Amino acid sequence: MSGPDSASGRGLDWLDATGPHADVVLSTRVRLARNLQGCAFVSQAGEAGRLAVLSRIEEAAARAPLLEGAAMLRMPAVPERQRRILHERRLVSQELLGAGGEPLAGTAVIVPAGSTASLMVNEEDHLRLQGLAPGLQLMEAWRRVDGLDEEIGRTVPLAYHNEFGYLTACPTNVGTGLRASALVHLPGLVLTKEIEKVLRGVSQVGLTFRGLYGEGSGVVGNFFQISNQTTLGKSEEDLVDHVARIVDTVIQTELQARQVLMRDARAATEDKVWRAYGLLLHARSLRYEELMSLLSGVRLGVALELLPGPLVRLQNKIMILAQTAHLEDAAGRKLAPEERHAHRAEYVRTALEASAAAGNGEKGGTSGSQP
Amino acid sequence: MSGPDSASGRGLDWLDATGPHADVVLSTRVRLARNLQGCAFVSQAGEAGRLAVLSRIEEAAARAPLLEGAAMLRMPAVPERQRRILHERRLVSQELLGAGGEPLAGTAVIVPAGSTASLMVNEEDHLRLQGLAPGLQLMEAWRRVDGLDEEIGRTVPLAYHNEFGYLTACPTNVGTGLRASALVHLPGLVLTKEIEKVLRGVSQVGLTFRGLYGEGSGVVGNFFQISNQTTLGKSEEDLVDHVARIVDTVIQTELQARQVLMRDARAATEDKVWRAYGLLLHARSLRYEELMSLLSGVRLGVALELLPGPLVRLQNKIMILAQTAHLEDAAGRKLAPEERHAHRAEYVRTALEASAAAGNGEKGGTSGSQP
Repeated sequence: MSGPDSASGRGLDWLDATGPHADVVLSTRVRLARNLQGCAFVSQAGEAGRLAVLSRIEEAAARAPLLEGAAMLRMPAVPERQRRILHERRLVSQELLGAGGEPLAGTAVIVPAGSTASLMVNEEDHLRLQGLAPGLQLMEAWRRVDGLDEEIGRTVPLAYHNEFGYLTACPTNVGTGLRASALVHLPGLVLTKEIEKVLRGVSQVGLTFRGLYGEGSGVVGNFFQISNQTTLGKSEEDLVDHVARIVDTVIQTELQARQVLMRDARAATEDKVWRAYGLLLHARSLRYEELMSLLSGVRLGVALELLPGPLVRLQNKIMILAQTAHLEDAAGRKLAPEERHAHRAEYVRTALEASAAAGNGEKGGTSGSQP
Repeated sequence: MSGPDSASGRGLDWLDATGPHADVVLSTRVRLARNLQGCAFVSQAGEAGRLAVLSRIEEAAARAPLLEGAAMLRMPAVPERQRRILHERRLVSQELLGAGGEPLAGTAVIVPAGSTASLMVNEEDHLRLQGLAPGLQLMEAWRRVDGLDEEIGRTVPLAYHNEFGYLTACPTNVGTGLRASALVHLPGLVLTKEIEKVLRGVSQVGLTFRGLYGEGSGVVGNFFQISNQTTLGKSEEDLVDHVARIVDTVIQTELQARQVLMRDARAATEDKVWRAYGLLLHARSLRYEELMSLLSGVRLGVALELLPGPLVRLQNKIMILAQTAHLEDAAGRKLAPEERHAHRAEYVRTALEASAAAGNGEKGGTSGSQP
């Protein structure tokens, strides 16, 4: 394993592909919560306890073949902006950044080379393993973390109860400790006002939904994260399969809603998506929330073939790279809010213009239906 | 004089130039209200009376050297869409179109060749002569109608009272019968919230202001028409000069306000004008009110050199040609509202793209200040 410097560029691999059902599903994530046998849970551990846990996990990671070449980052040693970049790439949680942005001693993240996954150490649980994949690939994402889980478990015994399964800091994670989630784009259901009904249905089959990041964040740009609520009473594979099947149903409902839009409101939809594209190409100042809302319009337009571009890959990339820490990293300095909005607009415009110049964008700009 | 067919294309000459102070003043208009001696005012005349007046004015027009080659259009004989086109080109008033769009017998308009002017017959007064010019050219517009007034008056004696001056149907026009107006674009004063104060000042010196067309129409896109309120007690030349001097003051105040914008809110202004341009280039549906508002943003951007184009001439042209009757004329058929908005967007987009391709537009698209 190597140090902080080798982390730059990591965690973006999933952006280079689109994956199955990319017209609705942006990405898939599976995480496992694990704790070391005989060690106090993180909230009770204190600094010495956390450092002891970290040391044992580091040892286990060093022996895990899947983690050959992985970067091990002790959070307090990572510069503040780089920590936020890790968060914006979804490799570490808000919690791991620490209260007030000061990470606790003993917190760390291990980022494997070549695949998009991360192992958070001393987050809510001793170990949180997560795998990310583009599109709807829940089983693939699960297999990735399952392999890591097994290799780590060979070196450090994990807290497991024959009746309950894996023991976790929060009772809601006891059992498999598994949460499988899909980040879905549902503009059709929102515009046809079917979204409430569909989300209610999702809740009734044991799944839950929320905005793009963490609990409590508002839903922006018609992006929803759907995941399982319970982790107990089923095998990991069955849980993943259950989520995959429900997400598949949501995808079908969304695609039907889009057909309704095309049948009943094609002109209005076309106008909406072209305006979103025009604003992204011309705005000189963009807040992240507005960017997400405009990207939602563009994504719908591309999916419905009303817009000639940009490619879904670029849309995904913009969602990640137009966040504050990434913009500050590109600028090489801290940005005041107004500057940040201007840099964001500049980045988005340049990226879209480059894509259009490469033939993935406005080149076919008049391909929409003409009056 | 010639018939209806020769009217197409007329009344657009002023669009081919920009005129003085084109960064603030779109156009200038001077009109004279005149009535024939010994004939009842239009409202009292009845059909026979109106036809008699028309016949005498037609005779006078035929003898006027300035009206050589002019088109004489009897309103009831002009097809409905062409009547609305004349209105959209500001050659005839809403009143001349008649209640319910059915013009009265005896109403007519004479459109001289080669200059932008019109003589309305049997509008509120027997004769309404008006001259239009691009930019701020009140004296030139006045000289144009003054010449016509003199030539007509040689053949038909005009109702004139030694004490009051020209007699008109409405007492507010008695005296010179002259109204001089300038169509001004005041986004700087609107954005710096100085507009109320300035318009109050305009009222205090005997001028009045209103929206783009006629009384009671709302102000759209920060466009205001400033004109004299009284027509009595001064010579025509003095009145025109008075209006010209006040408009000049308004122009200076507007230019100062724009400098304040550039100093205190450059980034926000730049964002605003680029967004307006982006929407005009990409929208698939545009209402006229929104078009005016977006054109206002673009006009400000071009004036402040934040936007590379389009030329003011094209902006003026779009304001006229993107109106309903012109769009229907281009389509060769009546358009339902939704269709009309789509045709408008298509026309605007095509015009702007052609202009940009000719080097008057987006070519220098990144010339705005970069963050």
